[in-house]
Amino acid sequence: MKKIVILGAGRSSSSLIKYLLEEGKHSNWLITLADFDKAQAESKIIGYQNAVAVAFDIFNETQREALIREADLVISMLPAAFHIHVAKTCLDAYVHLFTASYVSTAIRELDEEAKRKELLFLNECGLDPGLDHMSAMQLIEQIRGKGGELRAFCSYTGGLVAPESDDNPWNYKFSWNPRNVVLAGQGVAKYLSEGYLKFIPYHKLFSRSQSVFVEGLGDFDAYPNRDSLAYREIYGLEKISTLLRGTLRRAGFCAAWDVFVQLGMTDDSFQMKKLAGLTWRQFTDSFLPKESGMSLEEKLANYLNIPLKGEIMSKLTWLGIFEDKALGVKEASPAQVLLKLLEEKWKLKADDKDMIVMQHQLDYELEGKIKRLTSSLVVKGEDPVQTAMAKTVGLPLGIAVKMFLQEKIKARGVQIPINKDFYDPILSELKDLGIAFNEKEEELKNQ
Amino acid sequence: MKKIVILGAGRSSSSLIKYLLEEGKHSNWLITLADFDKAQAESKIIGYQNAVAVAFDIFNETQREALIREADLVISMLPAAFHIHVAKTCLDAYVHLFTASYVSTAIRELDEEAKRKELLFLNECGLDPGLDHMSAMQLIEQIRGKGGELRAFCSYTGGLVAPESDDNPWNYKFSWNPRNVVLAGQGVAKYLSEGYLKFIPYHKLFSRSQSVFVEGLGDFDAYPNRDSLAYREIYGLEKISTLLRGTLRRAGFCAAWDVFVQLGMTDDSFQMKKLAGLTWRQFTDSFLPKESGMSLEEKLANYLNIPLKGEIMSKLTWLGIFEDKALGVKEASPAQVLLKLLEEKWKLKADDKDMIVMQHQLDYELEGKIKRLTSSLVVKGEDPVQTAMAKTVGLPLGIAVKMFLQEKIKARGVQIPINKDFYDPILSELKDLGIAFNEKEEELKNQ
Repeated sequence: MKKIVILGAGRSSSSLIKYLLEEGKHSNWLITLADFDKAQAESKIIGYQNAVAVAFDIFNETQREALIREADLVISMLPAAFHIHVAKTCLDAYVHLFTASYVSTAIRELDEEAKRKELLFLNECGLDPGLDHMSAMQLIEQIRGKGGELRAFCSYTGGLVAPESDDNPWNYKFSWNPRNVVLAGQGVAKYLSEGYLKFIPYHKLFSRSQSVFVEGLGDFDAYPNRDSLAYREIYGLEKISTLLRGTLRRAGFCAAWDVFVQLGMTDDSFQMKKLAGLTWRQFTDSFLPKESGMSLEEKLANYLNIPLKGEIMSKLTWLGIFEDKALGVKEASPAQVLLKLLEEKWKLKADDKDMIVMQHQLDYELEGKIKRLTSSLVVKGEDPVQTAMAKTVGLPLGIAVKMFLQEKIKARGVQIPINKDFYDPILSELKDLGIAFNEKEEELKNQ
Repeated sequence: MKKIVILGAGRSSSSLIKYLLEEGKHSNWLITLADFDKAQAESKIIGYQNAVAVAFDIFNETQREALIREADLVISMLPAAFHIHVAKTCLDAYVHLFTASYVSTAIRELDEEAKRKELLFLNECGLDPGLDHMSAMQLIEQIRGKGGELRAFCSYTGGLVAPESDDNPWNYKFSWNPRNVVLAGQGVAKYLSEGYLKFIPYHKLFSRSQSVFVEGLGDFDAYPNRDSLAYREIYGLEKISTLLRGTLRRAGFCAAWDVFVQLGMTDDSFQMKKLAGLTWRQFTDSFLPKESGMSLEEKLANYLNIPLKGEIMSKLTWLGIFEDKALGVKEASPAQVLLKLLEEKWKLKADDKDMIVMQHQLDYELEGKIKRLTSSLVVKGEDPVQTAMAKTVGLPLGIAVKMFLQEKIKARGVQIPINKDFYDPILSELKDLGIAFNEKEEELKNQ
């Protein structure tokens, strides 16, 4: 019997849990689901004999050690900052570890010891990071295999709302950590364009979004992620001239979001005091210059040079930033005030479905011709529990765990799934589960 | 005999040193001038019998203690971060302390002990902070004295180049820490406008500069300082509706500087690598989107919506950011690259004179009328040593030291010069030394 411990039974763990419970029925697995909220863990194993739910506090070291020592394999779905505590206990207890999070420096440093102890610490095996790596590497290898030379690699991912549940002018609802959405892009974005490094400061990021078309869904905006270059060496793309990774939003989102960036409403660096009693109208006005004889709406449109009667102003008006309604907070950063409003307006309702969209664009040269391979993925949520986000984060991890327990994975140490041994079987099973990319190839005019 | 120790013999100490050496001739003072570079200290006391120069390292605790224990009074002209070390030694040794820097939290916490030991720790007694406080408080008290009620207080200061030495299109040269000039304004500026708090993010700061007119000199741009509200309580302006403190540049400077802000060239948050071999033209291009068929100049003008043949482009061209010249650095933040260029282009030459400009605008109501009192100060440097900056930073401090040694100051503990006992005599002597404000009053239309 194999003992699997899953740490964290939150929203994004649902599909992982269900997959392992189902697979565990005919394999000889005992699954322990551990969460700070025991009732939440219990609710996710109802009807399964091969699982137990336990209360778990990451800061209780004794409990953490006892739980991990019992296991053959631990899956950490906790916030990324906690993984290192789990990883160290796993090392001490000779237990394998799986996560869907980026490899931190601290985790990377455990590589040697993990290898020595013949343990696999697999990370970045969710959606983004995870599915993005695997699908990209498969395409890159496919092109290399036929002798093609890669010129450009652009890759975009977005967690969005499905068209059938899309009923607001922003065409957006939260399917992921709302705070991260509000703070997204702060810093400087770096990417490579035709051989040259490009830098975009935060205040230009959303006005410099690019258009991305996805068959069957239409147009999206894409803004570059903070560091598109991090995977240049890992993907083996040292010689590529264009390399960009970005985030997808529905067309028109970025121009409207840019208003908040320009105003300073996404700033999280200071606390505004004495907000009690202030209305949204007054709050919005505090980011605008004094101009006499203009309404707040005219002043904003004039300040940011946007049409008074246009899409952007409609989106802003719909959110309520021009309303005489109380903010309802006493002290908060501008970003926290905005977050509170958005959490209410962009909430996924009980019967709403979310959607994941991913697209890779690879330009390569083969036999004197330049070709573009476009590979797109669209995944929709089934219900509020089996969301597209939960499926795309959890299923790659679940499949990796199954393969490992079936002894099909030989790699040890700190790993990410960029080798064939990982991505071929994982992508193949995902396809069977309905998570399949749609490929298209066209010839580009020689440049 | 009174023993005065001056720590730091750098550029901004020159006028202070000269003032104290001259005053010390007929008072019975022994001045010890301590600097890391002993030769620099020696060069500043040539011809004076009442002074000695010593080598001094702030990190040598034994030496610091020995030096301070000998003194009756210490003046620290070291970088502000070092004051706390000096202050603690002063407390232990029962020695008074004078600085031209902002009171840090650490220094403020020494207030009680300093009072108990009957020591004066006078801070913020230079130009800005210093002369700004003193002149503002004198005006505020003058208005209150005649029964006026303050409505608005705006105060601007700039360290600039004198018109006779002004020979570049930016009308600016460095007379102060160049790095601070390049990074100026980063964060969020807060001020009060007609009863409402206003917030300006960094990327809007320079495009929202205001125009300030100074008699005899013409138009200036003023951009708000980071926190205009810090002195609301200290100045006793709790009921005021408009409160703004800002920095002065020559008209047209801010619009051109805003180009660097918009591009992201003032960013100091990350290091750009492999810069060796890169030209200024390539560096500038790395902050611009790819656009085919346009020159770099056209692309920049188009991106930022500025005229291709205008003042802003002339200023940028003069600096050399479109040149095929090597950057000459290997690894640096964008701000560091820009700083290197500006240090060369905006250098005060040996025979150049600098200039300090300060203006306070106070609106007040008296007998049903709204009046505006405008008080302006213009100070020009005498030569590269007795600069306007050195004079306005050093003379207020020197006068305060003299008054203290003449036992005309009774205050003890951590102080700033916002009481009459400080500012009346200091401003009066400054006037005799040619540092005088020019006042003008006009009646405003009732609003």
